[in-house]
Amino acid sequence: MLNLLNQHRTIRKYTEQAIAPELLNQLLEAAFRTSNTGNMQAYSVIVTTDNKLKEQLSPAHFNQPMSKQAPVILTFCADFNRFSKWCEQRQAEPGYDNFQSFTASAIDALIAAQTFCIAAESVGLGICYLGTTTYNAQSIIDTLKLPKLVVPITTITVGYPADMPELTDRLPLAAIVHQEIYNDFTPTTIDELYCEKENSDFYKQFVAENQKETLAQVFTDIRYNRKNNEFFSDKFIEVLKNQGFLK
Amino acid sequence: MLNLLNQHRTIRKYTEQAIAPELLNQLLEAAFRTSNTGNMQAYSVIVTTDNKLKEQLSPAHFNQPMSKQAPVILTFCADFNRFSKWCEQRQAEPGYDNFQSFTASAIDALIAAQTFCIAAESVGLGICYLGTTTYNAQSIIDTLKLPKLVVPITTITVGYPADMPELTDRLPLAAIVHQEIYNDFTPTTIDELYCEKENSDFYKQFVAENQKETLAQVFTDIRYNRKNNEFFSDKFIEVLKNQGFLK
Repeated sequence: MLNLLNQHRTIRKYTEQAIAPELLNQLLEAAFRTSNTGNMQAYSVIVTTDNKLKEQLSPAHFNQPMSKQAPVILTFCADFNRFSKWCEQRQAEPGYDNFQSFTASAIDALIAAQTFCIAAESVGLGICYLGTTTYNAQSIIDTLKLPKLVVPITTITVGYPADMPELTDRLPLAAIVHQEIYNDFTPTTIDELYCEKENSDFYKQFVAENQKETLAQVFTDIRYNRKNNEFFSDKFIEVLKNQGFLK
Repeated sequence: MLNLLNQHRTIRKYTEQAIAPELLNQLLEAAFRTSNTGNMQAYSVIVTTDNKLKEQLSPAHFNQPMSKQAPVILTFCADFNRFSKWCEQRQAEPGYDNFQSFTASAIDALIAAQTFCIAAESVGLGICYLGTTTYNAQSIIDTLKLPKLVVPITTITVGYPADMPELTDRLPLAAIVHQEIYNDFTPTTIDELYCEKENSDFYKQFVAENQKETLAQVFTDIRYNRKNNEFFSDKFIEVLKNQGFLK
């Protein structure tokens, strides 16, 4: 089991093999056994297998090839629509049109999503998370016809792996784990924690290809730059408002 | 593997047995193999084992017994502090003080948290998520001395199970899964999907004990009522501002 987790790779290329609907449902059932807030199960999953719908979804994911090529696209959503409808039908007044309810349902959707991924990997499938979901949530909402109180929070492409990439690097445990209280970083500890990463041939080439001086500059100037982060922040806050989670 | 996931229970009572630090680190290493945005690993985990610190954290979790009784408390945080410090030390200008960066790092923290939980369960440990983390984040920030750009998003109590509760119920798959596009619910489908839950002896007793007419009213009037949801929404938005994620 730890071995499975330690062998995790993001799979971006899939074979033609379809996923049997019974298997997919089995994996989703397992995912929904995961812990969730008050057992409200305030989330939903949209299963996209239709090629026309994949084409329509794809621009929201910047046309990354796996968003069209994967046999199955799963959009995990924070969802207080179903629960609120149930309340209204049972003489109960729902109060879930607020940020805390969004947060709780997004958390639940995400931990169900990750359980799905591990379940899928355990039966030989490969997965890829699409972080573009919160960038272009409105476009996904329009395509998938998501009602108020439903917001897509992550997307997973899934299929049988057509290749098996190398394991990617990770920072030392000391970069992530703090004992008892937060031990903030000094220039020396930062240097130590990033030393191996920065000195790897892979990242040296990556910096050169991107014509930058440092690896950090590839992130701040190109991949995750302030301008885009701020642009997509405003867009996502707008989506939360439109979908009724920020009155 | 699916069997492990299908047997998931929230464990709220633990034996006295400590968790070996080597084992805990092994589980955390496995958790950090999980997918994450741009491989920035923009999250952190605070490991609390000290009884005095557990006592200090506990009010934030409404003094739920497991927050004091569990041998280990893990606070998973969205964290752009370390990454931004690294950028600044490498002639790169970080632009992560915004809502999109918070969202990405919170997502990554959560899927790492869930991977940790499955890893822990696979070696016989039991876990409990504390949803109180986003209610009382400021108190956790103060106790754990979290700097700017670090926000706790979930807490997991972990230890060896002292009891093994019954599996809890789940809604039918059709309540959660939508094929191709969102199929919104009608009064009839709502009735069907909630029928089994509402007619179980467990929930009938639960409604009676809470002196309510319907199960939904227990949620809207007591457990997750509008007043608290709105109060904790304002508090959490304030925390995001204070920690520098909402300029």
